[in-house]
Order: sequence, then structure tokens, then C-alpha cells
Amino acid sequence: MISLNESILKRIAEEEKVPFEHIKNGVEQGTIVVPMNKNHRLLKPCAVGAGMRIKVNANIGTSQDLSDLAGELEKLKAAIGAGADAVMDLSTGGDIDAIRREIINQCPVPLGTVPIYQAAIEAATKKKSLVEMTPDEIFAVIEKQARDGVDFITVHCGVTLQSVARYKEEGRVAGVVSRGGAFMIEWMNFNKAENPLYSQFDRLLDICREHNVTLSLGDGFRPGCTADATDRAQLEELLILGELVDRARQAGVQAMVEGPGHVSLDQIETNIKIQKEICKGAPFYVLGPLVTDIAPGYDHITAAIGGAWAAYFGADFLCYVTPSEHLRLPTLEDVREGVIVLRIAAHAADLAKKAPGAADWDRAMSQARKKLDWTKQIELSINPPYARQVFESAPQKESGVCTMCGEFCAMKKMNEVLDDKK
Amino acid sequence: MISLNESILKRIAEEEKVPFEHIKNGVEQGTIVVPMNKNHRLLKPCAVGAGMRIKVNANIGTSQDLSDLAGELEKLKAAIGAGADAVMDLSTGGDIDAIRREIINQCPVPLGTVPIYQAAIEAATKKKSLVEMTPDEIFAVIEKQARDGVDFITVHCGVTLQSVARYKEEGRVAGVVSRGGAFMIEWMNFNKAENPLYSQFDRLLDICREHNVTLSLGDGFRPGCTADATDRAQLEELLILGELVDRARQAGVQAMVEGPGHVSLDQIETNIKIQKEICKGAPFYVLGPLVTDIAPGYDHITAAIGGAWAAYFGADFLCYVTPSEHLRLPTLEDVREGVIVLRIAAHAADLAKKAPGAADWDRAMSQARKKLDWTKQIELSINPPYARQVFESAPQKESGVCTMCGEFCAMKKMNEVLDDKK
Repeated sequence: MISLNESILKRIAEEEKVPFEHIKNGVEQGTIVVPMNKNHRLLKPCAVGAGMRIKVNANIGTSQDLSDLAGELEKLKAAIGAGADAVMDLSTGGDIDAIRREIINQCPVPLGTVPIYQAAIEAATKKKSLVEMTPDEIFAVIEKQARDGVDFITVHCGVTLQSVARYKEEGRVAGVVSRGGAFMIEWMNFNKAENPLYSQFDRLLDICREHNVTLSLGDGFRPGCTADATDRAQLEELLILGELVDRARQAGVQAMVEGPGHVSLDQIETNIKIQKEICKGAPFYVLGPLVTDIAPGYDHITAAIGGAWAAYFGADFLCYVTPSEHLRLPTLEDVREGVIVLRIAAHAADLAKKAPGAADWDRAMSQARKKLDWTKQIELSINPPYARQVFESAPQKESGVCTMCGEFCAMKKMNEVLDDKK
Repeated sequence: MISLNESILKRIAEEEKVPFEHIKNGVEQGTIVVPMNKNHRLLKPCAVGAGMRIKVNANIGTSQDLSDLAGELEKLKAAIGAGADAVMDLSTGGDIDAIRREIINQCPVPLGTVPIYQAAIEAATKKKSLVEMTPDEIFAVIEKQARDGVDFITVHCGVTLQSVARYKEEGRVAGVVSRGGAFMIEWMNFNKAENPLYSQFDRLLDICREHNVTLSLGDGFRPGCTADATDRAQLEELLILGELVDRARQAGVQAMVEGPGHVSLDQIETNIKIQKEICKGAPFYVLGPLVTDIAPGYDHITAAIGGAWAAYFGADFLCYVTPSEHLRLPTLEDVREGVIVLRIAAHAADLAKKAPGAADWDRAMSQARKKLDWTKQIELSINPPYARQVFESAPQKESGVCTMCGEFCAMKKMNEVLDDKK
């Protein structure tokens, strides 16, 4: 059974407007996780899972092609400023340790990583190939990151000899699109050995328990195109992850499960419900889902369409997707845009699920609209500086109305005619 | 029974990859409309309704505050270039006749209007108040626009004494947000008379039949905020529109029905299904729905989230919403963005509904991704120039991969390791 600092849980219960007992029970049973490493001074912890407001994660981090610590710290600030509930540092370029430590130091929200990236890159640098990394080296990196204060780690424990066999038998269009998944497959293929993150899962649990790191069980076989969604490889991995959730709970380690990926609208509800069933209510962390493959440059939007509905059907945690997905490493502006757009999706789901307090925001905005109170409308916008910029770019001629309808503003008319202004 | 030019229906059947008989029967029964005025030389007609690909409409037009014919013609070109299936001219400023005629002249797709705008504005100009317009003047404008070649008209026939009474009894947060609806209520309130578009509905049918104008039965009581969605005023109007659909079909006039508006995710399926049931399968033309009220500046996205799902559940025709909604008259760039984003929503629904041929596009893109064929990926993008611009802004260091993952590109690795490149 998992137990956490009660004063933090009480604070979260107040913010979420739910009874403290609900969160406490959820954490104990594993249907709620509160990622908070003992070594990270976390100013804004949050809870992810059953009955909690939908959370949004922003991925930042260098790549081999673009590595700039200052730039990534700017992205961190932008993500937090835009309202991200959590951030992942996915750096694969530059001095990865230094970058992670500085990001953790400056990150007020839960910080996640994918430790296999660093393990693979260090091996590739030192030994010329990532396939030469040893299980001990992998766990050493995980332990180092846990000591540094990482709050949650994505580990692709479900990429096993068995799920790889299912994958090969399946015949996919886009294959494997998970970087961590691809690393593990490359390693297993060369070493003719089982994935150590699976075969030595207890070792992973020991590290997580010691530092209170939350496991985010990665989906190496997440579909990378809608044609591959909900296939046998994906489901095989999910079954394995379900078993690992049981083992994490027994070991007193918090665990959530990652999910697709590219999934067309008709399959989203099924994907969420099967995950919740197989993983016994473990929090579900989804990337998108992207509901079509044809919109590079707009994949924050394909993800918002899928994410809103995934969250409505029961997903708990949305990983943002930026407009740059499939095209380039995101820019600062992409980071901001990605967070805002996925927060819209998250809020739309909270509103539809009648999350405590969610409708108050919409109602306040609608009342300000009816009163033609532009100051208030802009203040209540999800991105006030941007709303102000758009509004002020087209100066009103008639006081009180915008240039869309001018004096024929329906709200203005109705206030005058039927006097139905509230 | 409605019958249309068979050679055009055959062409549409080929484009839609459905049997000719399906379209012919749908048009006869009124579950499909093909807006095509006898007087408009329509280069790209389209079918809207049961079993058809989801269509997207772009609204353009001047306002009293911003009136510029050349600018609107640029917007027309931008909308068509971005792939709009239909365009509405909602001009309320400048020389409305001249603007409409030039737009019709240059518009290759079905063109819609809301004639009451012009009637009200002409009355307000000539007589100092729109409430002084006579029913004859209203019908004269409708007839003029029909003669000019308008393919479909929005008419708020369901704003009646009865539905206004229901509205007053309801007590809404945002009231009436439909401009046409507000005009009619103002007129009825002043003249203490029934809406002539309802009381003289047969006169409307005569005009439409003569010129083959498709009725788009407007929803004056569409909810303008999520708190007002699916209320008695909205439903009362829908019941009236259902009766008018019957009368239009009996008179041999094509009719579709317009729908909300602001609707939270949990109510979208119900809204679509009740419309389809009450209106006996009439094509459903929805604005959005916008799934939250809090995102001015991003309402193309709140509309895409709602529109994709509305279309998946049975809506047929999506009216775009631009990023400027609730803030200003859309710019040229807003028009382009609005069309692209709603086309993504429409395609996501087509894909999920397994519309003939829809999945081919996604599959071709996914195959190009797997091959790291960037030329093909950009060519297949929904907005190729934009995708190219984003991609080229971050030059690749390693040949064949983008800067997101660099040499750790999962697709590249998998192609090398398991040789599973298709």
C-alpha cells in the first residue's frame, strides 16, 4: 500500500475541491498517483488519476542536432507560464546530466524523464554503439536520475521478447515510433536477451521505492499511424504493463501507464476502457491521441481533438503535442502553443465530466460576454495576452462591440430589446 | 420529391466513391442536399448529407466596421485554396448587392447567404430602424438573392412567438447569439407579430423551388455558451424546424438544418441524434460545436474538437470557426487557418466512419513517414506550404531525419535493425 505526505495530499484535495479521503484512498489503491521525488523540492505537486482534474505535460529537451541549455530553460519557463502541470526533460544532446539537474532545480512541477535515452547515448558515445550498454549501466543511470530528484520516469518494460514476437508477426505500416521502444528492441536484437527493464523489474521497483519515483510504464508499441492502432502488438504490451502495475502496487511504488499515439476517433473510447480494465484503474497518460496522420504542422490540433475525448472517456494525463511534431524540434513558441491547446482539451473534458468548479470558468466568461465586458473576457481567456492582441488589432468603431458583427452584435441587441442582460 | 440534374449527381457519386443510386435516393428523400441554384454556374458542386464525405463551409463578408470588397475576394480565394467545400457571404457593410454578386461570380463552390441581414440593414438605412421592414421587403431581398444565384440561404424560420415564449421562460446565461435570430426577435417584439419567415413559409418555399435554392433552417436559439446548451428554447425551435423540413420536402425544396453552437463534449452525441430523429434525417449543418467558452483566440480549435465528434456522430456539414471568433472580424490568415483546421476535423470523422477512400490518405502519409520520404510527406500534408516552412526552418544535420529526434529517430533505427521498412 502506498502512503504519501498527508499535508501535501490535503493541499491537493483543496485545490481539486474533492474530499481528502478520496485522494488518500486513490493513492493507496493506485488509481491516483502524486509524482513527487523525495529529493525534488516541488512547489506545485499535482495528483493524476481517478476524479482528478485532467493534467497536461509538456516535453522539452535538447536533441543531438539542437542542444542549448539556456533555450531549454526558456522552454521550461514558457511551459510553466502557459499552465503545464508537469514537464518531461527528454534531452538527448549536450551535457545531459547538467541539463537535467538545472531543469529539476528550476522546475516547480513534477519532472519526468526517459532514462534509457541517457543510458543509450552514453553507451553510444563511450562504446560506439548503444547495444553495448550493460543492464548495470542502465540501472546506474536510472539510479542517478532518481537521486537527482526526477519525479516520474518512463520505462519501456513492456517491450519484451514476447511482445516483439507479436510485433513481428503483426506487420505494421509505421512500425515502432517510440524512441525508447526502438532502443530496447535494438538492444534485445543484438544481445539476444530479454529487456532488463522487464527481467529485472524488481530492481527498478527498489530504486523507485527508495526515492519515491513514480513509474510511467511506457508504450514502446504505441501506434505511430492510425492504420496500426489497437493491434495485437499494442495489446500484448498492455497486458504485460497490467501485470507490472500489479507488481508495482504490491511493492508500494506508484505507477501510471502510457498510451497511444495515433488512434482514429472510433477507437478512442475502446482504447481508454481496455486500459482502465486491464490495468485495474491505473492512471492513464496519453500522447494525443492524434486522430489523423495527415496534418503535420497541426498535430497540436489532431492531439487536442483526440485528447479531449480520451480524457472525457477516462484518460487522466495528456502529453502535449506541438505544431512541430513530425517536422522539427519544437521552438519556444511551439511549447507555449502546445500547452495552451492541450489545456483547452483538458478543460473541455473537465467541463463535460462536471469536475468540481470546472463550469464556473465557462459561466464567468459567458456572463462577461453577455455584459460585453471585454476587460473581463480577456482576463478570463486561457491566454489573455494573445486574446488581447487579437482583440486590439481590430479597433472597435462602436463602443462595446467587436468588429465581427459591429452594431449588429446579437448580444447588444438582445440586451436592448428584451433587456435580458443578467 | 426532389430531383436534380443527373449528370451532376453522377459526377458527385464518382468523387464520393459511392453508387449513383445512393445519392439519387438521398436527394429524393431529403437526407442529402446538393445546393445548386439554377442561376449559379457552379464549377465544384457538392453533396451534403447521409453517407457523403463531411463538408466544410467558410464564412466571409464585410461588417459595418470593416468593409472592403477586394479584401473579401481575397478571403474567398484563400478559403477555396485551403479546400472549403462551400462559402457563405455574410456581408453587413458596404454595397451588399455588389459584394454578393462579385463573390457569386468568382465562387466555384456553393455560396450561401443570410438574406435577413441585408433586409434589416436596408430597412435600418432607409427607415432609421430595422423593425420597420415589411414582410414584402424581406421576401423581396430573398427573391433578389435567389435570382442572383445564391445556392443556399439561412432563414431563421423557427424563431416564432412560441419559441420566443419558451426562451423568455427559460432564463439563459448568454441569451440569443444568432444575429439573424436577434433581428427577428427585435422585429417581432416591436411589431407584435409572428415571424413572417414562419407565417409565410410557403412563400419562401415558392422562391426556393423556382430557383432551386436550398433552405438552411437557421437556429436562432443556438446556445451561445455551454451553460445554455440543450435547453428548452433550443429544443422548441428544433421541433418547429422538423415540421418545416417536412413541408419543404413536400414542396420539392431541398432543406438542411443548422445546429449549435456552444456544447460541452457530453452533450454532442445527444444533440446530433435528436436532430437526426426530429428532422427525419435532414442534413445537419453545425457551427462548431465549441466545447468550452474559455478560449477566445483558439475557437477554431474548440470548434475542431466539437466538430470532429459531431461529424463522427452524424453531423454532415461543419461551418468553420476562425481564431478571431469572439474577438474581431477574421483576417485573410484567419480564413485560411479556419478552413484547414475544420478540414482536419472533417477528415478525422471521415476516417473514423470509414468513408470510401478516406484511409488511403493517412496510409500514404504513414508509408512516406516510414520511408523517411520528406518530399512525399510534405506533398501529402493538409497544408503543404506550411509543413514545408516548418520542416525547412530547422535544417537536418543527419540526412533523412528531422531535428526532433535526430539520429535517434525510431523509424530510422527500426528500418536498420529489423529491416521492417515497407
